[in-house]
Amino acid sequence: MAQKPGKFITFEGGEGAGKSTNILVAQEYLESQGIKTQLTREPGGTPLAEEIRSLLISKREESVNELTELLLVFSARAQHLNNLIKPALAQGIWVLCDRFTDATYAYQGAGRGLSVEAIRTLETLVQGNIRPDLTLLLDLDIEVGATRARNRGALDRFESLDAEFFSRVRDMYLQRAKSESYYKVVDANQSLENVQLAVKNTLIEFIREVS
Amino acid sequence: MAQKPGKFITFEGGEGAGKSTNILVAQEYLESQGIKTQLTREPGGTPLAEEIRSLLISKREESVNELTELLLVFSARAQHLNNLIKPALAQGIWVLCDRFTDATYAYQGAGRGLSVEAIRTLETLVQGNIRPDLTLLLDLDIEVGATRARNRGALDRFESLDAEFFSRVRDMYLQRAKSESYYKVVDANQSLENVQLAVKNTLIEFIREVS
Ligand SMILES: Nc1ncnc2c1ncn2[C@@H]1O[C@H](COP(=O)(O)OP(=O)(O)OP(=O)(O)O)[C@@H](O)[C@H]1O
Ligand SMILES: Nc1ncnc2c1ncn2[C@@H]1O[C@H](COP(=O)(O)OP(=O)(O)OP(=O)(O)O)[C@@H](O)[C@H]1O
Ligand SMILES: [Mg+2]
Ligand SMILES: [Mg+2]
Repeated sequence: MAQKPGKFITFEGGEGAGKSTNILVAQEYLESQGIKTQLTREPGGTPLAEEIRSLLISKREESVNELTELLLVFSARAQHLNNLIKPALAQGIWVLCDRFTDATYAYQGAGRGLSVEAIRTLETLVQGNIRPDLTLLLDLDIEVGATRARNRGALDRFESLDAEFFSRVRDMYLQRAKSESYYKVVDANQSLENVQLAVKNTLIEFIREVS
Repeated sequence: MAQKPGKFITFEGGEGAGKSTNILVAQEYLESQGIKTQLTREPGGTPLAEEIRSLLISKREESVNELTELLLVFSARAQHLNNLIKPALAQGIWVLCDRFTDATYAYQGAGRGLSVEAIRTLETLVQGNIRPDLTLLLDLDIEVGATRARNRGALDRFESLDAEFFSRVRDMYLQRAKSESYYKVVDANQSLENVQLAVKNTLIEFIREVS
């Protein structure tokens, strides 16, 4: 009998929304239910994709053209999708990914003002009709997010941008949460305990739906 | 008065066809005619684009997905075009480029069997309607080219492919030479002296046409 394919779950949200914290919570819960999981992140997830990530986040003298950045993001994604995500799903493993294409719409699209049409063209080219089965959007007020990120130390190239930028990013996420059926929004302003509870409840409901 | 834009000239052909040799011959001739030139190459041409080139040509354990490779090629191209080629042309400088998008059609398209539709989509996304003003195709028998390349030393990832591959590459170049009006074919099987003469004559004719 053919293996039942795994589910593709992504974690989205602004800086310090709690993606990296809650993806571990989700993994622990799923594994406790006997579900095999693979944790990964974007950009990155394979050795070459991580090398591309390094190119993207390193500071440089040369100005980075917006289209260059977008193509690098999708080149890492093509590698990640074909070499890690699809093979894992085919083996019945659930893939938990810290950011995916929705982050491209939010950061490159709304944040940096790149053509949403260009993003859509590349999404179709690289993904065909693959979309997440579930996206947990950790929605957080900008100020709260910035404070949490700052407490953790150094800011990278993405993080050293301004509040208006992050506001556009958040609005794009919320807009997509309305238009894309795979989104579930979690209020990330709550205590970590309550956020974890909300994440767990969302997973319980999702497992029920797909069983 | 607005600066008259420079011309965009590319050099194409298989391994060891004489691109790197003859691009220098072309530069010397154009400079002797009082034309400012900028020599460059693909993939590469800016610091970031050269870093992307390194990712492309380095040997690795991980298999490189074809779409990843194609997107990396075009990300380097977007950077090169926007940060070097366009600014130079705008200043009236003639850009001499060792390989460009025609090499993508030949190597990734015909050689590695990637969808020509995907290449066309990315060409439009990255270049809009920018195409070379002149492409010098140095057309060489496969055997002769391989021998010349071998004499020069180590083979990189691209060069360690087989004769059938190079035959498909050559055929695609010849096909495009028929369909794209910016092509001029030079028979590169001749002595270097005669090839250089043909390159110079092609430039003389081109300068006459565009003056
Ligand atoms: N609900 C919460 N309440 C208080 N602090 C939290 C909450 N969730 C996460 N944190 C803390 O905020 C910081 C950022 O969390 P985390 O690294 O999980 O966010 P992130 O979304 O992965 O951020 P980034 O986008 O920068 O990777 C951490 O120090 C974490 O412990
Ligand atoms: N017409 C010719 N006759 C004989 N030898 C030639 C001729 N043209 C070039 N060569 C020699 O062939 C070798 C390859 O030439 P060149 O490096 O210019 O080719 P290329 O097209 O740039 O190759 P590659 O694709 O590997 O970069 C060099 O050693 C060069 O001197
Ligand atoms: Mg994180
Ligand atoms: Mg060369």
